This record gives sequence, structure tokens and C-alpha cells, in this order.
Amino acid sequence: MREVAIIGIGQTKFGELWDLSFREIGIQAGLAAVYDANVASEDIEALYVGNMSAGRFIEQEHVAALIADYSGIARDNIPATRVEAAGASGAVAIRQGYFDVASGLHDIVVVGGAEKMTDVPDAQGAAIQDSAADQQWECTFGATFPALHAMIAQRYMHDYGVPREHIASVSVKNHKHGALNPKAQFQKEIKLETVLRSALVAEPLRMFDCAPLSDGGAAVVMCSMDKAWKYTDSPVKILASSQSSDTLALHHRSTITSFGATKAAMRKLTKRTGVDVSQINLAEVHDNYTISELLALEDIGFFPAGQAGKATVDGQTQIGGRVAVNTSGGLKARGDPIGATGVAQIVELVTQLRGEAGKRQVSNAKYGLAQSVGGTGSTVVMHLLGVA
Amino acid sequence: MREVAIIGIGQTKFGELWDLSFREIGIQAGLAAVYDANVASEDIEALYVGNMSAGRFIEQEHVAALIADYSGIARDNIPATRVEAAGASGAVAIRQGYFDVASGLHDIVVVGGAEKMTDVPDAQGAAIQDSAADQQWECTFGATFPALHAMIAQRYMHDYGVPREHIASVSVKNHKHGALNPKAQFQKEIKLETVLRSALVAEPLRMFDCAPLSDGGAAVVMCSMDKAWKYTDSPVKILASSQSSDTLALHHRSTITSFGATKAAMRKLTKRTGVDVSQINLAEVHDNYTISELLALEDIGFFPAGQAGKATVDGQTQIGGRVAVNTSGGLKARGDPIGATGVAQIVELVTQLRGEAGKRQVSNAKYGLAQSVGGTGSTVVMHLLGVA
Repeated sequence: MREVAIIGIGQTKFGELWDLSFREIGIQAGLAAVYDANVASEDIEALYVGNMSAGRFIEQEHVAALIADYSGIARDNIPATRVEAAGASGAVAIRQGYFDVASGLHDIVVVGGAEKMTDVPDAQGAAIQDSAADQQWECTFGATFPALHAMIAQRYMHDYGVPREHIASVSVKNHKHGALNPKAQFQKEIKLETVLRSALVAEPLRMFDCAPLSDGGAAVVMCSMDKAWKYTDSPVKILASSQSSDTLALHHRSTITSFGATKAAMRKLTKRTGVDVSQINLAEVHDNYTISELLALEDIGFFPAGQAGKATVDGQTQIGGRVAVNTSGGLKARGDPIGATGVAQIVELVTQLRGEAGKRQVSNAKYGLAQSVGGTGSTVVMHLLGVA
Repeated sequence: MREVAIIGIGQTKFGELWDLSFREIGIQAGLAAVYDANVASEDIEALYVGNMSAGRFIEQEHVAALIADYSGIARDNIPATRVEAAGASGAVAIRQGYFDVASGLHDIVVVGGAEKMTDVPDAQGAAIQDSAADQQWECTFGATFPALHAMIAQRYMHDYGVPREHIASVSVKNHKHGALNPKAQFQKEIKLETVLRSALVAEPLRMFDCAPLSDGGAAVVMCSMDKAWKYTDSPVKILASSQSSDTLALHHRSTITSFGATKAAMRKLTKRTGVDVSQINLAEVHDNYTISELLALEDIGFFPAGQAGKATVDGQTQIGGRVAVNTSGGLKARGDPIGATGVAQIVELVTQLRGEAGKRQVSNAKYGLAQSVGGTGSTVVMHLLGVA
């Protein structure tokens, strides 16, 4: 397969975008990426859109055709395909686009992700998120998506003797990073007490342990490496893509304090690239809940099991630490418009690897790792990017 | 890219499957394909699932992970991805699976499609179908999915002076074929009067002009051609895949009596394979409404514009005619569980090309053409299969 580069990135501000519809969000992100890449609209040969639940959020399926239409690229009859894997929807879109170009099918492809979550009442939005888990055997019996993650957190604290404050410190760190990102939904630093005293969601998780409901879009332009230099002086290479699955329901796992799919995806990534976790100091991981970031960091191999909380408290995961994790603010502070999230991770890594991250710039990052999760670890998609 | 073969097919009966849940439908189809292919579960390296709207039909997104889980293949952490393009969801899944194997990413891949539509009231099911069209600029103003197709039919009759009976004859022919298919939802022949006197849906379309709401699943096992002979004596080759898009809303088109996306997809298919339409005598096309089949046959090039109705009346599209169209019974009689439909077309073509279609066997078919449509021609996916 061919080498693939990302030559353009775009993102809307994440947040409650009352004045933008779903299609406007998608197009704003897509056009920003296309302008950034310096490609003409007629150069684009295919479109992939990551989206979890436009059907339930705005009663519109078929959203890839919608975006192709309103961005004007449908007039060239290019293929436009939506892909979905709950929270990992944007990441699977990145993956499909990557293999599209890598296989030689197309030379220039746009991958976008978008979600418009605030057109429904908050409780309904939360219920839609539940559909990432097993409706028939988890949600029907009252297990909401936050409740499932709360069980993970409880077990994690019990097994490793981790204090509650360690988990909460993930939120503090990500808000600190988010304060440096002008596209983030929340751009204010918070204190540990803010997390610990916020409204209870599902013991032990509180409001500030949970990513918000968000509107937003993100997009990238991919190009075969050999043509990339024609468009940009700073292409970023996709070194590898891996995707793994696990049972949909938590109760079918042998452990819930570790995601087997993350471990499997990381093994594949290491095998394909030869890059060891010790060489990586920049990562965007799926912190839909604070506990999720700790599991991610341990399953990837940055820290031993039960140690990621302590590492977070010690500043090892903030900018300047051992590995800068979620420099964008993560799902917690940057926001989590579900379908856009996996794409936004890539946008952040490219921004960093280009050296364009301003106040949140990580120095000496040769690689950028993205880990995106669908459900409670049922789908895990990982990408490793590198300076070309 | 490598040559790709289909080495296994499976399908549930289509219909109102009250005793089967979505996951059971998906797994029943998938297992049938896996048994037919003679592959072991651990040989399967990836899963693609076509599904339009499980989120709204059963409040469950993330359905590829669900099927991977319940079929037992998630234990090997294989990637499982859902793709969606409304009515063409199954066909885009076939396409993603095809390129997955063609590119060399994986050797053996399962592609399935499923939909469970009868767990919601009929009116709600119909409203969910509307989300294939433009919610904001079509459906909000009262244009339902059948109404949009009714406008196409009105304009078609007006432009070409085609009598109503010609359109209705598509339904009669497809029910005749469906009567020969033990997996079809409707296995009874009907008379022209049955169509013309059935309940009015949207003038001129009546109940028997419209495909039903259906439950069902279909699946295929794909394999690189070089390994296919290890598993089967009758592999069927995927000669090419093409996908095109058009505006989501009908009112943005210069014509509504022809789908530009079908024409574009057919051009690509002809260019890639060198196979001319005159060489094809077997096709499954997207007859979600009777009028849709006529547009498909004309846009593909089987008949001149305005002539497909007459050709249908003359028996040129039935088994034994110039081209046997929808030998499975089509969406009208076989049934239309949306995400499964594009996969079921491939299942039928493989059955025919293997010579296993029994009473509905088409003789001397060298090629089989599948055309699947999302929305009112906003996405069109086509595949050409051939005897290996």
C-alpha cells in the first residue's frame, strides 16, 4: 500500500452552536480543511463522514450525501459514505479514508466528522449516547452510559487502591490544556474541588468527570504521499491505522478495568510501525469520562496498570511531561460532538506535528498517537502520525 | 489491486420476523454465509455491516460491534465497522469490504446488512425512511419519501406519455419472480388490477407500487481470488465497484426523470471492466417504488428513456427476457429491510451465477449487475459480478 499524508485540517469551534445547523457545521469544517490543503474542489475524489446518530439527533440519515451535496462536491458525483462506530465514528472515517488513498483507489480524499447534539433536550441527548452500549442487555436494565463508566471507576479504585482525587485530576489537566485551545468548548482552568463538588452523575463520577454534549465538526484532507508535496510544505504522514473490537456489553468481559481492544489495537500499531510507546510523547486519547483516560494510558502502555492517576497528579501527562495527553483539551474540555471527535484528535495531532499549536505546543514530538473508543471499549481505533 | 471473490452467501427470510431480534437476524444471515463459505470463524479478519437506522428502529447504534460480539468473532478483536447511505447502506458495505480485500488489507472479510423495521408502528417506520431524503428542505414541508417518488412518476408519465399501467407492471413482474423465491417476503403472484386498485399512497403510486417495511439480514464472505479456490469450487468474482452521489433534494436537479448518479456509476463500471450493457442479461436494481425500476433500467442503458415500462409489459425484463431484472422479487416482493437490501442483491446474483437459483434460474448469465440507491438517487452504488 502507498504512503498517505494529511495535507489539510479544519475544525469548527466546539460547543453549543445554536446558530449553525448540522450541514453548516459539516461544511464549515470541510471547507476549512480544503482551504488549508490548497486543493480545488474538483480535485476531491471521495468523502467519508463519521457520524454517530444524526438519525436520532436531527432525524436525518444519509449525512455523507448531504454534506457532499451542500459542499458542492456532489456535482462531480464523487462517492460519499458515512461510517459509524459510536464514539469512534470519526476515527473509523479516518481509517476508511486512509485505506482508500493507501490502496490507490483515490489520490485525494476528504474525511470529516460532525454531530449536532444540542437540538434535542439534554436528557434525550444522554439517552442517545446510551445507544453506544448494549440496549437490550445493559440499558434496558437501567445502566446508562455514565453508569457503566462509573462501575469501571469503582472497580478500578477498588482493585488498585487509587484515590478518587487521582481520577478527578484528569479533568483538571484537560481543562488546563483546553484553556489554551481557541476551538475548545471550555477554555477555563478548573480546580480539583470543582470536579469533586460538581453534581453527582453516577457514583463516583460527577459532572466534571464527564465530557459535555457538543455540536461541532472536524475534517482533514488526505493525499497520497507522492503528491502531497505539491500542496504543502508540511505534510503529516499516517504511519499506521489499527482497529479492534470487544464485546458490546461490559458484563461479558473478564476484566472491566482494562480495555482489551485498546491493547490489541496498540499491539497491531507497534507491530506495523516498529515504533515503541517509549518513543511517543504526544497523544490524544478518548477521555469521554476521566476514568477512560486512565484506562487508555495504561492499556496503551504509557504507565503500568493502576499508575496513570498518580502520573496525572504528578504532571507527567500535561504539556512538558513524559507524554502530553489531550493537548486539545480532550473530549472533556475541547468538547465531544461524537462523530467529530475522532477527526478532531487527528486535527490536533497534525497541528502539533506541524508546530502550529501556539501556547500549547509540545516540543520535540516526532510522533502523535490517537486512540478513539466506541461504547465501553467495544470498538477501539488507533492511528499513529509522524512528521513526513 | 487484487481480484476478489465471493465465496459464501447467506440470507434470512425477509418479512415480519416477530420472533427474531436485530442481532439474531444479523447473526443468522452471517452464520449462513460463513457455513456456505466453509471458513472457520477465526479465519475472518474484518466485518462490515450495512444498516440505515437501527438508532431509530431499535435505539441501538454501534451495530457492527454488536454483530461482531454476538457472532463470537469479537473475541479475536477484529475490526467491525458500520456503513450507511440510506437505501444503499448494504451496497456501500459490500463496497468497503471489496476494497478491504482488493487492497490486500485482509484476505477474508464478512459483509452483512440488516434492518429490523417492524418493532415500531408502520407510520413511524415510514417517517424513518423519510430521513433518506432532505429533512430540512423536503420532509419539513410535507414531502414524504413516497411523495417524492410520486412526483418523479408524474413527471415521467407526462414527459414520455407513459400510461400508468406500464409503471404498475413492474410490481406484477417482481411478484411473479418473488413467487419463485422461498426467502421472499411475498411469494404470491398478483394481477395488474391488484396494483391499480390498491390503497392510494401518493398519486399515482399505490400500496403495490411501494416496497414493504421488512425485517431481514443478508451476508456474504469475500476472499482474495488466489485463496478462494481453497474454499469453494464456484467463487464469483467482483469485477468492479462504483459509487456516485447527487444532490440530496430532488429540487436541486436539472431533471427528476433520470438519476445522474446511476448514469455516472454505470459509466465508471463500463470503463473499469470493458463490459458493455449489451452483454448483461441479469440485474438486481433498486425498485423501492415501481417507478424507480424504470429509471434504473433506462439510466443503466438497458432501454432508451421512456421505454422501460413498455419493455416490462412486453416481458423483456422477466426471466427469459432480454434482461432478467430482480429475479429475487426485488425490493417489492423479496422485501426491503433497508440495510440488508444491497447485500441481498449480491446474494441473488451469486446464487444465479452459481446456477443454484432453481425455478428462477436465468440461463447463460455471464455477468450480474447490482444497482442500489440511497434517497431519491442521491447515492448510487453499483457492482458487476462475473463467473470466475
